[in-house]
Amino acid sequence: MNQDIKQLISQMTLEEKAGLCSGLDFWNLKGIERLGIPSIMVTDGPHGLRKQKMGADHLGLFDSVPATCFPSAAGLASTWNKELIYEVGVALGKECQAEDVAVLLGPGANIKRSPLCGRNFEYFSEDPFLSSEMAASHIKGVQSEGVGTSLKHFAANNQEHRRMSTDAIVDERTLREIYLASFENAVKKAQPWTVMCAYNKVNGDFASENKTLLTDILRDEWGFEGFVVSDWGAVNEPVDGLNAGLDLEMPSSSGIGEKKIINAVRNGQLSEDKLDQAVERILRIILMSVENKKENADYDKEQHHKLARKAASESMVLLKNEDNILPLKKEGTISIIGSFAKKPRYQGGGSSHINPTKLENIYEEIEKTAGQNVNVLYAEGYHLEKDLIDDQLIEEAKKTAAKSDVTVLFVGLPDRYESEGYDREHLNIPENHRLLVEAVAEVQKDIVVVLSNGAPLVMPWLDKVKGLLEGYLGGQALGGAIADILFGEVNPSGKLAETFPVKLSDNPSYLNFPGERDKVEYKEGIFVGYRYYDTKQIEPLFPFGYGLSYTTFEYNNLVIDKKEIKDTETVTVTVNVKNTGKVPGKEIIQLYVKDLKSSVVRPEKELKGFGKVSLQPGEDKTISFKLDKRSFAYYNTDLKDWFVDSGEFEILVGKSSREIELTEKIMVQSTTPVFLEVHRNSTVGDLLTDPILGEKANALIRELTKGSPLFDAGSDHGEGAEMMEAMLKYMPLRALMNFSGGDITEEKLTEFIKELNSTNFVSL
Amino acid sequence: MNQDIKQLISQMTLEEKAGLCSGLDFWNLKGIERLGIPSIMVTDGPHGLRKQKMGADHLGLFDSVPATCFPSAAGLASTWNKELIYEVGVALGKECQAEDVAVLLGPGANIKRSPLCGRNFEYFSEDPFLSSEMAASHIKGVQSEGVGTSLKHFAANNQEHRRMSTDAIVDERTLREIYLASFENAVKKAQPWTVMCAYNKVNGDFASENKTLLTDILRDEWGFEGFVVSDWGAVNEPVDGLNAGLDLEMPSSSGIGEKKIINAVRNGQLSEDKLDQAVERILRIILMSVENKKENADYDKEQHHKLARKAASESMVLLKNEDNILPLKKEGTISIIGSFAKKPRYQGGGSSHINPTKLENIYEEIEKTAGQNVNVLYAEGYHLEKDLIDDQLIEEAKKTAAKSDVTVLFVGLPDRYESEGYDREHLNIPENHRLLVEAVAEVQKDIVVVLSNGAPLVMPWLDKVKGLLEGYLGGQALGGAIADILFGEVNPSGKLAETFPVKLSDNPSYLNFPGERDKVEYKEGIFVGYRYYDTKQIEPLFPFGYGLSYTTFEYNNLVIDKKEIKDTETVTVTVNVKNTGKVPGKEIIQLYVKDLKSSVVRPEKELKGFGKVSLQPGEDKTISFKLDKRSFAYYNTDLKDWFVDSGEFEILVGKSSREIELTEKIMVQSTTPVFLEVHRNSTVGDLLTDPILGEKANALIRELTKGSPLFDAGSDHGEGAEMMEAMLKYMPLRALMNFSGGDITEEKLTEFIKELNSTNFVSL
Repeated sequence: MNQDIKQLISQMTLEEKAGLCSGLDFWNLKGIERLGIPSIMVTDGPHGLRKQKMGADHLGLFDSVPATCFPSAAGLASTWNKELIYEVGVALGKECQAEDVAVLLGPGANIKRSPLCGRNFEYFSEDPFLSSEMAASHIKGVQSEGVGTSLKHFAANNQEHRRMSTDAIVDERTLREIYLASFENAVKKAQPWTVMCAYNKVNGDFASENKTLLTDILRDEWGFEGFVVSDWGAVNEPVDGLNAGLDLEMPSSSGIGEKKIINAVRNGQLSEDKLDQAVERILRIILMSVENKKENADYDKEQHHKLARKAASESMVLLKNEDNILPLKKEGTISIIGSFAKKPRYQGGGSSHINPTKLENIYEEIEKTAGQNVNVLYAEGYHLEKDLIDDQLIEEAKKTAAKSDVTVLFVGLPDRYESEGYDREHLNIPENHRLLVEAVAEVQKDIVVVLSNGAPLVMPWLDKVKGLLEGYLGGQALGGAIADILFGEVNPSGKLAETFPVKLSDNPSYLNFPGERDKVEYKEGIFVGYRYYDTKQIEPLFPFGYGLSYTTFEYNNLVIDKKEIKDTETVTVTVNVKNTGKVPGKEIIQLYVKDLKSSVVRPEKELKGFGKVSLQPGEDKTISFKLDKRSFAYYNTDLKDWFVDSGEFEILVGKSSREIELTEKIMVQSTTPVFLEVHRNSTVGDLLTDPILGEKANALIRELTKGSPLFDAGSDHGEGAEMMEAMLKYMPLRALMNFSGGDITEEKLTEFIKELNSTNFVSL
Repeated sequence: MNQDIKQLISQMTLEEKAGLCSGLDFWNLKGIERLGIPSIMVTDGPHGLRKQKMGADHLGLFDSVPATCFPSAAGLASTWNKELIYEVGVALGKECQAEDVAVLLGPGANIKRSPLCGRNFEYFSEDPFLSSEMAASHIKGVQSEGVGTSLKHFAANNQEHRRMSTDAIVDERTLREIYLASFENAVKKAQPWTVMCAYNKVNGDFASENKTLLTDILRDEWGFEGFVVSDWGAVNEPVDGLNAGLDLEMPSSSGIGEKKIINAVRNGQLSEDKLDQAVERILRIILMSVENKKENADYDKEQHHKLARKAASESMVLLKNEDNILPLKKEGTISIIGSFAKKPRYQGGGSSHINPTKLENIYEEIEKTAGQNVNVLYAEGYHLEKDLIDDQLIEEAKKTAAKSDVTVLFVGLPDRYESEGYDREHLNIPENHRLLVEAVAEVQKDIVVVLSNGAPLVMPWLDKVKGLLEGYLGGQALGGAIADILFGEVNPSGKLAETFPVKLSDNPSYLNFPGERDKVEYKEGIFVGYRYYDTKQIEPLFPFGYGLSYTTFEYNNLVIDKKEIKDTETVTVTVNVKNTGKVPGKEIIQLYVKDLKSSVVRPEKELKGFGKVSLQPGEDKTISFKLDKRSFAYYNTDLKDWFVDSGEFEILVGKSSREIELTEKIMVQSTTPVFLEVHRNSTVGDLLTDPILGEKANALIRELTKGSPLFDAGSDHGEGAEMMEAMLKYMPLRALMNFSGGDITEEKLTEFIKELNSTNFVSL
């Protein structure tokens, strides 16, 4: 095929080639009829298809063809179920084939830096390992159907505020360990057909013009083979983009980009080879799409709806279940309160906003599942479309609640509170929701709250309710999924892929979000999400990885197959998990790694493995994890590489980031030699403790300082011993001259440094 | 005099000039006999004189002549009493005159970034305003006696860990608002004879070679007139130092520095003018010292001791007084427990460690003050010199406590826990102190703890005691001061000049202290101390500015003399404070400013004024504060200047940073014009809301986007209205091309930008 492409390109005019590098219109790439190159369509995703027939926009304003609406990524990630996400991906691919869509624009692998980011519902997690694994499964699923994906928004697009102009200032280690790591595995493992670059700048350059990101890292290091497309309107200067590694501008620039590219080739600002390269990458995907096109493809709407229901029920997270208020009994009177029950919030606003094939009504699904013996009451509780506090609705709700044995309260964030395009400014639910919860709690002690929202909330009312189900944005089949969980038809098995803080100011980005003017500095560095809460010892409302079940699980027999490894080896960790309760259930097992002593600052622990198992009552299974160098390494900015600090690490296995059940230790030995370069500001302490130089340095320093009154004094003065030791330890070699009474000269020092540096390489 | 100096220099050889730029020995500058230039002596301070006769060192190891030991800076700052600190300065100056010392090396104005810094006891505060005011008073006092000071350690020397090699990476705004501000007023108001540069690097350059700090800011901006001396051993390359603005290397470099300077002048690396300038500055101070020398000076040791006692009693902070356990009654049985009572910890380790003229024994002072009717018992409680837990001592202490009506427990940090030279690694008191508190609490409900320490501690045992007196390092007269406070002879009036956190990890620098290898990044930025705790809403153990009294105070009638000012004007704030209790007392009134809406991130509030008044029972006084531009400004790194964001500010007056009694609002209008420079990435929102460009931009953008389906769409779609609005608001001008369907061309855009930029300057 590559030969064909090169041959095709050789037949193209400069104008045709330049033309291919920007869109035909809002959703279609250009084709070249005379060469038989078709125009292919790309459309928004990621958790459903948004194919617009007319009135193109990137904000979910105009209608699109009906498609299955799966839970958005915040929910999908909470399943921690790679196979399930793959299945959803397959379904999405089938729908794309049926609708003649070549590339689905997603998934989004941006890290949830702040819970305020308006688009968090579209992203997976605050943890790069989990996020990247979820993204990889999503991509593999979609692409297994011969449909492309667009892993987005690359990179550091972690807010909507001024997203098209702001500059994300992220230090190299943080970028590598957190923000890029979230994309890295997805690219390496799943090879998305395309990657979408972000709107914002990263460390001074627009993501669309960022050679470090688009070429050095994405292609040269990670081996990405597809094309890079701009987010819609993200191109600043198309020629700078092409030079940096961008291939396709979307949407159309109405000929402006084309013209600039042609001029740039003519005046030498852009080499024709670079242009050919972009064209080749685009053509390769167009041809792959043609090759993989399934004629007359169709999909089973009912089957996809069922899958959406399954995904929804695994995505929901049971956060509180005092007195085992859940599952509800199928008897007595249940009051359903809150407008969401009949007009559900099931997806987010913006480019991912789709037109569902059908939409379940939560109230009706509850009625259906509850069966004949339950009397179901309903009260609206609040106005959905406005913030007005309506005392009458609240009074009705109280009366309704008072008449029931148990109340299920539906609150959360209405559409306008949370969307692509802008960030939230606080973590509260609307006042008319909050007051409803508090009013109902006055008359009803048995309350289950079901939340509809795309990102964390604060819950000052939490102690007034017994049950809490985080429903996220559950997609079109959320109704059935909620009913299934409420009545125990399905045992909840989701766990949080993000921390819920007690208050907004607890969040690590709080002092630096959303930045000043067009600059946002990620000063919290690698301390994102639980990495921050754990290290700073801040109690979250609900920790990362947390979620309840209707059954109980016991962890046993944590085994590491080697107690000591080199960083070139892998180690296998196994643990046995048993269902010790009375109903079947699924458990998500999490493996964290902690560096017990490091020369750089590291988080308290980092997620390096997870698995989900289904267990019958009394059943147990052994889960296995494989750890490699990367599981122990940090990104060393001097070496420009991942590096393991030799020493002891702790392996922590648990139910959540705050419920560690079992731990073991392992010694990991680095195989990367690191030499101390000696110079006049090397400290005495560093030299004396260096494994290679220590002995020789000790002898030389003794020799140098012999007879110096100060250095000899230390030993005589018991009370100053700690200080003397510290003073010498931190003293740079050149300062010995000030404290030696003239015995140490510049020449002696130079000799000394030369001698030690030569020692360094003797051992090589 | 200047003419004399120039004339003197003209007579000097290059060798003599180079020679003057480094010390003669450890404590003396060089003189030039043939020109009648004497060698003057400089010695350590700052809260007492450390003049060594033999065995020179910078660590407090060898003996020095007796001198009055005043409370160290942590305590002095807690007095918030500028007059008192001036008085202490005067006393120090007199002692220097008596001992023939020309310059006392201090005060230290470094900010307490972390409570772990081993040298915090020598520094004033976490707040630059308070710190700088204290330093200014100290300097004025010493210098009023014709003795110089050395304001140190300039700058960003906020830790002992690797202090001679580490590089403090501090962003410009933080440096200006926090770390430099702590020196700025002291230099401007008090003109210290010398400034001592720090050991560490600041943003890449050694403080001793940092032209930005030593010349651009210190001299050119602040108008410093004295000489800059290196911290002892802080010179890396003397020639680079001279070129950057360093004048004097200390201690002697045994001719090495001299030789380098001579060579550099000869080979043109250093201009002779620059050398002459340094020599001139040094000579100026030598001659000032000669001029101000008081022959046969002496001082009244007893009077200075009394002043030390007064300073000590104002420096102590009453932190807890449940059930008014204090003041103690002069009757019954009082048990005194803890070795500190007989072997007090009254000063810190390192260069400030002095040989006191006498030393009070706390136990004896208590006995004396208690009088005949009190039976005073004593138990040692713990070994002072070691961490060994001695159950027998604890048992004895319990027995002693059980026999008494009330127990006064002396615990804190022994010498080895806290010193110049190394940092602490935790905030705990020794285990043998902690266990003692807990053991005694088992048998005694009435416990007063008196702490001896130089910096914050954590107190998991706090709820087991009723009284808590923070004694800091109280100097040689601490015993009498403690006795005075315990029995109510003196009403405590100190307040904390730093926050005591609940736990170490609450501290803002926690994730970035003490840095990695030779780099420490101040990522918390301006959020130091209460600026962080208040903004992040973290409850401290004891907040900044907190301290109790034996009486009560009422705040009334907060008046701001203008409701609206330009930033070129000043405003006077007055408040009335009344002693509503039964005993005389002193109150520290604090004024904070809060920017209610700012375009940059600002702390919740900032200290901008304070005052201390003495009030008889029933008496009231009106305190007045003057606020100016600087009280409202932040440091704008684009303008490279202090800048007031026009708008409303809140004036908060209170007893501490967390006990605000009265607030008022004021409008402040900036007089610095700021123009929006329009470019292709200017956002639509910025243009539309710009006070100068808004109207015109609105018309032009309407014109540009007319007919564009997307921009017209917004209005039709109620549910997408917020998103549409946000999208447009954040859209850079150039992106209009992608969304206009071809109506906007690059040419039109260029015209548009030109048009708006010209508008900008029309109004000038």
